[in-house]
Amino acid sequence: MSGILRDRSVADAAAALWPRASASEREVRVARAAWAIVAETGDGVAGRTVRALGPVDALAAAGRAAAGSGAPPAGVAHGEWAPAVARWRPRLAEGARLVAAALETVRRRGLTLLVPEDADLWPEQLDDLGDHAPPALWVRGDPVGLAGLRRGTAIVGARAATAYGEHVATELAGDLSLEGVAIVSGAAYGIDGAAHRAALREGGLTVAVLAGGVDRVYPAGHANLLARIAETGAVVGEVAPGTPPTKFRFLQRNRLIAALSGVTVVVEAGWASGSLNTASHAASLGRPIGAVPGAVTSAQSAGCHRLLREYGAVCVTNAAEVGELLGTGSAGAPAAEIVDPRLVRVADALGTRAWRTVEEIAVSSGLALDEVEAALGSLALAGRAEREGVTWRLGAG
Amino acid sequence: MSGILRDRSVADAAAALWPRASASEREVRVARAAWAIVAETGDGVAGRTVRALGPVDALAAAGRAAAGSGAPPAGVAHGEWAPAVARWRPRLAEGARLVAAALETVRRRGLTLLVPEDADLWPEQLDDLGDHAPPALWVRGDPVGLAGLRRGTAIVGARAATAYGEHVATELAGDLSLEGVAIVSGAAYGIDGAAHRAALREGGLTVAVLAGGVDRVYPAGHANLLARIAETGAVVGEVAPGTPPTKFRFLQRNRLIAALSGVTVVVEAGWASGSLNTASHAASLGRPIGAVPGAVTSAQSAGCHRLLREYGAVCVTNAAEVGELLGTGSAGAPAAEIVDPRLVRVADALGTRAWRTVEEIAVSSGLALDEVEAALGSLALAGRAEREGVTWRLGAG
Repeated sequence: MSGILRDRSVADAAAALWPRASASEREVRVARAAWAIVAETGDGVAGRTVRALGPVDALAAAGRAAAGSGAPPAGVAHGEWAPAVARWRPRLAEGARLVAAALETVRRRGLTLLVPEDADLWPEQLDDLGDHAPPALWVRGDPVGLAGLRRGTAIVGARAATAYGEHVATELAGDLSLEGVAIVSGAAYGIDGAAHRAALREGGLTVAVLAGGVDRVYPAGHANLLARIAETGAVVGEVAPGTPPTKFRFLQRNRLIAALSGVTVVVEAGWASGSLNTASHAASLGRPIGAVPGAVTSAQSAGCHRLLREYGAVCVTNAAEVGELLGTGSAGAPAAEIVDPRLVRVADALGTRAWRTVEEIAVSSGLALDEVEAALGSLALAGRAEREGVTWRLGAG
Repeated sequence: MSGILRDRSVADAAAALWPRASASEREVRVARAAWAIVAETGDGVAGRTVRALGPVDALAAAGRAAAGSGAPPAGVAHGEWAPAVARWRPRLAEGARLVAAALETVRRRGLTLLVPEDADLWPEQLDDLGDHAPPALWVRGDPVGLAGLRRGTAIVGARAATAYGEHVATELAGDLSLEGVAIVSGAAYGIDGAAHRAALREGGLTVAVLAGGVDRVYPAGHANLLARIAETGAVVGEVAPGTPPTKFRFLQRNRLIAALSGVTVVVEAGWASGSLNTASHAASLGRPIGAVPGAVTSAQSAGCHRLLREYGAVCVTNAAEVGELLGTGSAGAPAAEIVDPRLVRVADALGTRAWRTVEEIAVSSGLALDEVEAALGSLALAGRAEREGVTWRLGAG
């Protein structure tokens, strides 16, 4: 069962893929690839085991346990260890074959297996997921921008978006890209696609996070879009190449989108949309959520309004407001209108044609004579009152 | 200067208007009418003076002070007393004539002068305005519903409303009316008018609060609407009959709309709309604010989005959500989807046509054999999995 690390075909695939790496570096990478395959996405016991022992020893411990021996590592409860080993056992039995195939695909397709040990490249913001952080990321494209996504924005939303939603997603992603903000999304039809496309059009960095293997094209109609994203940005997944996307993996993928990005903005979403799941992951990670409002008569905005009502989302209507959430915005407090109410009252009392005395203006404005005179002076300076002898009327200015 | 209360024409008008009232009751009502005329709307020093001395003695004190003698009453600072007296002086000089004319108009037009001493009728929620509460209300129509407006909703918004805004105002006001919630608004074109009309159509109580005298028709095109509101509800103002609406009085009127109502909802509003002023009065009174979202591309929703971002407004999309703000709603916590993730993972692993073994399903779902078997049992009970021998596939249900 623990044979993955000693398997000949795995060793060959690893040597072909990482010819300049040391044996121990290769071992770590193989072990992380194995964990990404053996444990389903977001497996907390796997996360705790890897954190306690490191990926290599953790894999050996899992193999011994699957064969019937060995206590749980520190930090893993007895009650959760046995069920975890039971759910890893079926895949451990096929582990060597699955890992060798995955590494072979990585090499053949020019993918990258990114691991936390890749110090400058690994997006450390994923550590906020704790035990649920992925053991590795599989990357199609250039992994160099992933660490910087903590200053990027996730723009997500409905597949069945309206023209309004696609318009807003395009505007937001385009404007943010022009300001150097990277756009993270899920490559789905609708809002996701509009956001990726707008970022590409403006020459910005955009990253697609997939629920399945990054060598799979999903959705099928986005083959070209995914290829273009991979050319300048990256297509990322936490499951091995070849792995199909499933409903469960879509929900897990959403936590990665939220954890990679500094802010998550939902542009359009139905009442029970998966985008609400992404937003709620962001909220539980302490990341700000933005929601774009829409007509209350639009079912595709119902989820956004729900985020505003129930999830503490911030209403965002343009890129500058998203920038504020990122902490990069320069929008200050709204300008308060500072107008002396006495000026308003005296201006109200002036005629456009009729000339009025100060006494008449005092009666209609309810102000003292000296207040009226002072206000008339201010209004005259601003061109808003004019005088003829002892009478006044509204000025042309 | 203090002659209003001793003026013959004022006494005659009061006797004709309130033939069955005692002399002291009449005196209180005359004094309050005088304060509504002498002090401009929202005059805090007038409010403090009336609270300190009662309306009758306060008026006498103001008269003496205007004539050059007398210290400020308790609670009024020396520094604010002299300027206040200076601004009351011009109107005090004409007070008797103005008050007599106002009372005569009230009688002739069948209006009501409502004062705080009208114990069961006075809307006590106005007391929340403190020194800025109006000394009296002038009412066209039936004042009986005003006290109950603390359970009512103000629905306000842009004059230049869009079809969307008018539609939503109509829906909200209509649905709230059907639930017995009174609708308060400002009788303006656009959102205000749509809200009043919808309430009338459903047979609900609706109240219009005007910036000018209630005998004036403003806006001119709403003569019929105001007449219909007065037939079953009320048209209310704090300034005497005949007084023109001014910009200043519109802003002051907004505080009355907010203070009369339990909740203020803004349906559409430009970035610097007067409706934001109404909402901010509501907020400073501790009343909830609701804002109806709209397209971010609509300038007439920009003010609503600003309320959501800057004023702590609650996003409201239907009457039930407004009802929650009023504390009358029955909407409970949103139903959480409680789905065992293992069921999702096993269902993901089942084919629509292909039959799979438990072992195969365990590998693709990443679950233990016994977990897969338990999940298959649950799914089969729900009709979502079907069995043939030792193999399974998705069920038709």
